[in-house]
Amino acid sequence: MVKKHSNKISPLAPKSIKRLLPIKGISLFVYCANLYNKKRNDLSIFLFHNQSFISEVFTKSSLRSVTLDWNSKALKSKEVQAIVVNAGNANTFTGKQGERALKQVIKTVASKFKISEKKIFIASTGVIGEPFPTKKVVNAIKKRKTPSKNWIDAARSIMTTDTYPKGISIKSFIGNQKVTITGIAKGSGMIEPNMATMLGFIFTDAELDQNILKSLINKFVNNSFNSISVDGDESTNDTVMLTSTNAIKFKKKIRSINDKRLKKFKLDLEKAFLYLAEQIVRDGEGATKLIEINVKNAKNKISADKISRSIANSPLLKIAMYGNDPNWGRVIMAIGKTYEKVKSDKLRISFGNYLVAKNGQANAKINEKMLKKYLSKDKININIDLNHGKEQARILTCDFSHKYIDINASYKT
Amino acid sequence: MVKKHSNKISPLAPKSIKRLLPIKGISLFVYCANLYNKKRNDLSIFLFHNQSFISEVFTKSSLRSVTLDWNSKALKSKEVQAIVVNAGNANTFTGKQGERALKQVIKTVASKFKISEKKIFIASTGVIGEPFPTKKVVNAIKKRKTPSKNWIDAARSIMTTDTYPKGISIKSFIGNQKVTITGIAKGSGMIEPNMATMLGFIFTDAELDQNILKSLINKFVNNSFNSISVDGDESTNDTVMLTSTNAIKFKKKIRSINDKRLKKFKLDLEKAFLYLAEQIVRDGEGATKLIEINVKNAKNKISADKISRSIANSPLLKIAMYGNDPNWGRVIMAIGKTYEKVKSDKLRISFGNYLVAKNGQANAKINEKMLKKYLSKDKININIDLNHGKEQARILTCDFSHKYIDINASYKT
Repeated sequence: MVKKHSNKISPLAPKSIKRLLPIKGISLFVYCANLYNKKRNDLSIFLFHNQSFISEVFTKSSLRSVTLDWNSKALKSKEVQAIVVNAGNANTFTGKQGERALKQVIKTVASKFKISEKKIFIASTGVIGEPFPTKKVVNAIKKRKTPSKNWIDAARSIMTTDTYPKGISIKSFIGNQKVTITGIAKGSGMIEPNMATMLGFIFTDAELDQNILKSLINKFVNNSFNSISVDGDESTNDTVMLTSTNAIKFKKKIRSINDKRLKKFKLDLEKAFLYLAEQIVRDGEGATKLIEINVKNAKNKISADKISRSIANSPLLKIAMYGNDPNWGRVIMAIGKTYEKVKSDKLRISFGNYLVAKNGQANAKINEKMLKKYLSKDKININIDLNHGKEQARILTCDFSHKYIDINASYKT
Repeated sequence: MVKKHSNKISPLAPKSIKRLLPIKGISLFVYCANLYNKKRNDLSIFLFHNQSFISEVFTKSSLRSVTLDWNSKALKSKEVQAIVVNAGNANTFTGKQGERALKQVIKTVASKFKISEKKIFIASTGVIGEPFPTKKVVNAIKKRKTPSKNWIDAARSIMTTDTYPKGISIKSFIGNQKVTITGIAKGSGMIEPNMATMLGFIFTDAELDQNILKSLINKFVNNSFNSISVDGDESTNDTVMLTSTNAIKFKKKIRSINDKRLKKFKLDLEKAFLYLAEQIVRDGEGATKLIEINVKNAKNKISADKISRSIANSPLLKIAMYGNDPNWGRVIMAIGKTYEKVKSDKLRISFGNYLVAKNGQANAKINEKMLKKYLSKDKININIDLNHGKEQARILTCDFSHKYIDINASYKT
């Protein structure tokens, strides 16, 4: 009944991906562990040579992967010696087998690279509830392996239903010293605010301690990885890690994220977070359009968030966008179903610059033809002015297409 | 790009609809007001002859139709003389024009039938944000009209994207006196718990005062109209009304819903509520399967509700069901994203009688072939035993199909 989806690259993908810059102090190993029973890389290990720090944020799901339980503990050491990432199996709801598998993998990595088990982090993505393929992963790691120079291979190895690898490198400065930021991410379905089957790894060679990393990740994750939604479904495995190898040292250490020397670095790091998060939406399963929802002048931040997410997650609205249908009644519906108090006679709704509703009714002067033309673009802005306060929220999502259904009606089987 | 959807009847529709029994004390008028610019009935008026009572529940949407604001006020009189229902326009987000339209319609009905404006109730369904077609509706009502004997015509007149009319009649008893229940409903998209583009009208000829009606509607609405979900989208116009014409009198009045004489009537009324609610899901836009989600042994009622609704509204789960895909990992995901605490090692998930997950992992003994066969049926049960308490919840939903997208990508245009 259901067609197999093609592996065509998302129409919203960037034209090209610039070369990723390796980060000083990290060796990358990329493997084919045969987790998909075909010739593709499916496992990466980032090996940190010297004292390196890490901060990590997790899904809020109450049924999360055993890998995240492990990382939560590992995080106590604040240091990282290796990050292991596999596709093909999420190691979620795998019970005792999954726990044993995880320990086996950690043990193998520790012994192979002569590092401390407690400083190994792990991230898994793929099918839930299938026994973890321990042997395949362990055997792959045990094989002799030379480091990979091409970091995009790592981005490629962690893809599941992703249609293209996601990565970014930025040459930045801290004070007048050159530092590098490189990040990779994966995720294209089961994506929601608070991250879902979404993995993000951002690395820098700058000397930054764990407190600084923690402040930075908390500062930038909300408007990026936590402000995207593909389908309102949130995964058991989402995580974002930010690490520093300390390869580029500063005479005077950075003690606070308010240190003026961080000015450019913070802008660039935010750029990396935003870019990677946006790529996940651009690769949303079956997506034909990127949709940016901006709610402004809400009575408070919670209200702004709730309303923007409700719109972003409405199947009816997402399908209307797919059909180039200026059905702003569905925006009204999505606002209303949050039960948030709004002043309907002050509400203004626009698609791009086209004001479609104001003063509690349709804008009669709308140029339907131009509006339709606007809606046929591959990037749509939906702007909601609540005129009810001063808070705002922005969220990125994509449309719902026939292809989304093709892809997800036959994921497991 | 988007195909026009056919008007084929839902594959989940009942084989036939039994004749609806008119209710003593009500005359029904069914009109073609030309609201769809084609020959179909689109307006009904239920006219109550003698003192009749009403109770009504509303959508919780914070941007609800002006019709519901009107009814909230009308409800204060506790009595009903007419119910006016139109399809074609929801009279929502229509501003001052919509308010004037409503008053004009009420005035016309009051004058035509010589009844009190304050005892007229109104319900509208259809597109949001378009000016209400006052003239068409008023002109239709003004025309001379003979009452309709066939109540299914009323069910038909309020259809929007519905593929079949929904109605039920039950001959019941209160004590040893014969009474009749007849109900009609509409709705097939934008349906969620707490009712969405969902209208329900249940009538009886039994002598029951407004307090009794209120208790009855509150008793039965939660497990019926509030426990269904098509797409997680909730409308601005949902309402359910329960009315009594008092045509069948009792020597000793009914003073409490615990009156023993109500025993059979309550069972039958509940049956009518459940039947109508189920029909709405069976006519879910593009639905190919009815899905019943049963959550049991939750730690409390709120947790049971949240979890059942999260599963029912997960696009990924609904699409898996469409594809006959036993992807119970998506059930895990949907439970987890509620953030409700659950004991993963005690959780049991079954599709029908097929236990797919237990003790925090997959059930290895599953007969995949039989399970696939089960999933290809047009009614699927998903049972979640949380083993964490004593509360439960049940919710009806349907799958997400290509046709759902066809229908909704081109509703307005």
